Amino acid sequence: MTAVLSPEQLEAELRAIGARLYHDQHPFHALLHSGRLERGQVQAWALNRYEYQRCIPLKDAAILARMDDPALRRIWRQRIVDHDGSADGEGGIARWLHLTDALGLDRDLVQSGRALLPGTRFAVQAYLQFVREKSLLEAIASSLTELFAPGIIGRRVAGMLQHYDFVSREALAYFEHRLHEAPRDSDFALDYVKRHADTLEKQQLVQDALRFKCGVLWSQLDALHFAYVQPGVAWPEAFVARPAQAAA
Amino acid sequence: MTAVLSPEQLEAELRAIGARLYHDQHPFHALLHSGRLERGQVQAWALNRYEYQRCIPLKDAAILARMDDPALRRIWRQRIVDHDGSADGEGGIARWLHLTDALGLDRDLVQSGRALLPGTRFAVQAYLQFVREKSLLEAIASSLTELFAPGIIGRRVAGMLQHYDFVSREALAYFEHRLHEAPRDSDFALDYVKRHADTLEKQQLVQDALRFKCGVLWSQLDALHFAYVQPGVAWPEAFVARPAQAAA
Repeated sequence: MTAVLSPEQLEAELRAIGARLYHDQHPFHALLHSGRLERGQVQAWALNRYEYQRCIPLKDAAILARMDDPALRRIWRQRIVDHDGSADGEGGIARWLHLTDALGLDRDLVQSGRALLPGTRFAVQAYLQFVREKSLLEAIASSLTELFAPGIIGRRVAGMLQHYDFVSREALAYFEHRLHEAPRDSDFALDYVKRHADTLEKQQLVQDALRFKCGVLWSQLDALHFAYVQPGVAWPEAFVARPAQAAA
Repeated sequence: MTAVLSPEQLEAELRAIGARLYHDQHPFHALLHSGRLERGQVQAWALNRYEYQRCIPLKDAAILARMDDPALRRIWRQRIVDHDGSADGEGGIARWLHLTDALGLDRDLVQSGRALLPGTRFAVQAYLQFVREKSLLEAIASSLTELFAPGIIGRRVAGMLQHYDFVSREALAYFEHRLHEAPRDSDFALDYVKRHADTLEKQQLVQDALRFKCGVLWSQLDALHFAYVQPGVAWPEAFVARPAQAAA
């Protein structure tokens, strides 16, 4: 039987899981960041990813609803504020809609969800289900993919600005905000997990939770790649890119 | 506002959904049935599909648990008998394991679920969640993909026997049974749906349920195709085919 890990050993294991399974390793991201996608493929990515963005506050509210400690809730609720903002047009979801607007997507279509790939929907649903059904420790641990977000966001913003003339810095404002929010959030969650995963079993559950969450992110890109890159056969009810209009 | 459909019109709409969205249209099946897959790719298909097979009785038990009418339950419970059998080694799940055995897969690996693609897991989970949370009518309607099963099963059995020397008729016994079971099940479910979807709203829900279920089947193949065909980049913890051993 393996011994209980020290908090530092647990952190090292978690970082190793991220190095292996985080979606920065996914071929779709290599294409997205290096300018090898057409505008319609970037649209498909943004439209599908909206489903994930839309559900982040639902996920965080489900976690919040399971926290007995007001001090803990005060910290966690900031995530909901970040994504929902304090008025219409503010917050991370609104910033994602600015991106889909800037890409020329119809906002009603994006918000309706009717053009999503089934794989997107199921992955996001699985995430919501996970945080509702698993322990609070596992739910918090599943947020730890944010540990690895700053690296991919830096590459994404630089790569998309360099390669796509239909993407502006303003359109990517969502990511600039996340560069500040994600480290604050993941520092807190990592510290929580290191303090509370004090048995081998809990440490295993925490690692499984991070693996699961990496799968949530990864499988969304599998579906996108199949539908819009190779072989490029989209689910018959999914988003179809129209030929690019003249630039506004 | 559209008028309520006659039962026959509703059936026609449901059959049109199947013609458009059922997974017999998916490129992965074209490869599988025409002999264009390697043994390792067929193994990956059978291993992932086991997760779906494993959950069919869970799905049917969830539906059974919501049926107030003993007569209805007596009919529906047969589905569970079909998949679980009456003793070890009998029933649809055991027959699926005969297939994975015949393909040279380790039974512990298959049953553990640890080599699954995340997309497989999430699609199957979404199906279970659907039948637990939606109305009984929608849950029953989601089973209607079986209306379209005999056609694909016929092509699958003929194609696999013709093209793959590592597949025998005995290994495909699961499908021979389904050729008899699926029409009986889908006839009943279709009749139920035609009788109970007596408002426009219910008829819409029934159609949405069938669309949803087609997505459950479809998205599993998206994930398989991405991981094992094109580009062939599997989730790092997923099944890896070993070079074929000498035939037994």
